[in-house]
Amino acid sequence: MSTMSDEIRQQPVAIERTLKAEWKHAHKLREHFARNPPKLIVLAARGTSDNAAQFGRYLLEISTGIPVSLAAPSITTLYKSHLHLPDSVVVAISQSGESTDTNMVLEQAKASGAFTIGITNEPESSLAKLADHTLLVRAGKEKSVAATKTYTGQLTCFYLLAYALGAPIALADLEKIPEWTASALKLEPEIKQRAERYSFMRHAVCVGRGLNYSNAFEFALKLMETCYVVAERFSSADLLHGPIAMLEASFPAFVFAPSGVTWTPICELLTKLQSIKAETLIVTDKSNKGAAALQVPSYSRLTIPASLANRGKLPVDVFTPIPYIIPAQLFAACLAEVKGLDADKPRTLSKVTQTM
Amino acid sequence: MSTMSDEIRQQPVAIERTLKAEWKHAHKLREHFARNPPKLIVLAARGTSDNAAQFGRYLLEISTGIPVSLAAPSITTLYKSHLHLPDSVVVAISQSGESTDTNMVLEQAKASGAFTIGITNEPESSLAKLADHTLLVRAGKEKSVAATKTYTGQLTCFYLLAYALGAPIALADLEKIPEWTASALKLEPEIKQRAERYSFMRHAVCVGRGLNYSNAFEFALKLMETCYVVAERFSSADLLHGPIAMLEASFPAFVFAPSGVTWTPICELLTKLQSIKAETLIVTDKSNKGAAALQVPSYSRLTIPASLANRGKLPVDVFTPIPYIIPAQLFAACLAEVKGLDADKPRTLSKVTQTM
Repeated sequence: MSTMSDEIRQQPVAIERTLKAEWKHAHKLREHFARNPPKLIVLAARGTSDNAAQFGRYLLEISTGIPVSLAAPSITTLYKSHLHLPDSVVVAISQSGESTDTNMVLEQAKASGAFTIGITNEPESSLAKLADHTLLVRAGKEKSVAATKTYTGQLTCFYLLAYALGAPIALADLEKIPEWTASALKLEPEIKQRAERYSFMRHAVCVGRGLNYSNAFEFALKLMETCYVVAERFSSADLLHGPIAMLEASFPAFVFAPSGVTWTPICELLTKLQSIKAETLIVTDKSNKGAAALQVPSYSRLTIPASLANRGKLPVDVFTPIPYIIPAQLFAACLAEVKGLDADKPRTLSKVTQTM
Repeated sequence: MSTMSDEIRQQPVAIERTLKAEWKHAHKLREHFARNPPKLIVLAARGTSDNAAQFGRYLLEISTGIPVSLAAPSITTLYKSHLHLPDSVVVAISQSGESTDTNMVLEQAKASGAFTIGITNEPESSLAKLADHTLLVRAGKEKSVAATKTYTGQLTCFYLLAYALGAPIALADLEKIPEWTASALKLEPEIKQRAERYSFMRHAVCVGRGLNYSNAFEFALKLMETCYVVAERFSSADLLHGPIAMLEASFPAFVFAPSGVTWTPICELLTKLQSIKAETLIVTDKSNKGAAALQVPSYSRLTIPASLANRGKLPVDVFTPIPYIIPAQLFAACLAEVKGLDADKPRTLSKVTQTM
């Protein structure tokens, strides 16, 4: 089996470790932000970390009401423009902490007076040294080129950051996540069996909405880099605004379908996909009765065997993104194996990518 | 020939008409913003209009230094969250002005005190009635489902908005754009001839950087909706952070390559694509000597026969995005024809898409 598969399985422990070690730190940050509430949050990242930032964007806007901008690094690195960022928090997210461009964005923001935070897996990295504060992902060394446990670790840090910025989150809420992640891992034998069906898949669409939009990006990225599948990523709304035209009978579509406010538009999309006769694989959990009631073939639904609905002040689907990416990661790892590819060493890639 | 092709050819006239009619309006807005400088700009859109917003994001940050956030409409429409937007300008972009979700974002922003602007082709639309100010795209009725002249019209309005927000742009600079667009249209016979080569293309990547990043999105969208090609869109940096692994010999890659600060990373990417033996088609113009010097087959370069380099205070490539999308639009229209598809009526789509 691949190192990627091992690292996927390490996630419940890694998330628990990160929560335990960083909670106090988040609490201190919360005191800081209570005195200095920011007016804007800017998130800078690349690759998988940028997908985590996409999640952070939704979580932070929904839970704090503070507007979030996903940075376009080239504006700093290539065009040498200086943004006016008073009362802003700028967050750089990087597994290695050595991404030249995101570090440059953070450096310039710091010089112009912004409060800076790093989210990284490497305590001794340039990013950790540069940022005013570091939320440390405690996933342990990630050896596979395909990032898995650092992605969910970064998502964990975004929950901590939301708490720090005043979101109504308690540690007890977050402590459910490792358990739900472990529940999602139980799908491995089922996914292993199903992956073979997709051996000759050349292209696909991955669809998510709201808090699970980032998972559509991350699933597509895993399919591209470990299985060489041309996988597109969309929100259900964006897919309907044009790209849906390219879908036809048997076109593979992977759809994240939690309970909550995104279920209505996702369900409408699923109906449309059925009318096109696209081949859909739905990722859902026990709490989504609507998804369970869909008249679809048995091979087209992966149901996490726990109820992941949140009952607190935050949305019903707020804690689904980490457990929901697990079946996607497992699927990519299993499909790479079925295709005889080495998921840990994709062609053309290395672990740390430097871009400007 | 398709209505889409006709509408592509109408663009120089449509842009000139928009500039002439809206310049004074932009000037009045400039006086308003000089008294009330905003601290944040939020752009809300879907589909092609969202691609135009992507351009607006780069242009506004580069030319004004004001941070820009591309709105995630579901945060308002589904999660019912209220963002804190004091001192913000919120801009909704919609061809029809009837997109439920973007109008809802604008409505809520207005209620919370933000200054609102609509960019639309329809003066009597809900959006035009809702917004504090409307920058009107004067492209004439767009009949083809595939948007072309409203996209470049929206880009034109973003130049006007940048001027309104204090950017060092003169009307004389903008008046070059219709002429450069006309120059790009001269490539039509060459593109018509080349399109046939791509008849059986199933997938592709479209790549741009900085100010032309939005064009990568728009080219991909045109290929998806009019030619049913699974076309992915990336910045050169994002492509290198993982997805490059899916590329192999003969994989089609379309790359926007203007002069200026993005040329170095784009050139590095082209070298990488050559080593993979991907089949690359470069869109460039007469000013890019580096692109002209590349040792590539004749069928792999489309050179706009005018020098599009800006000589003013703004970046060299600042006025390239409108002329650069023309070869891409023509390519999609010609390829659809070669494949026997009706570019004006893609399957599954209608002109106005309503999503929540």
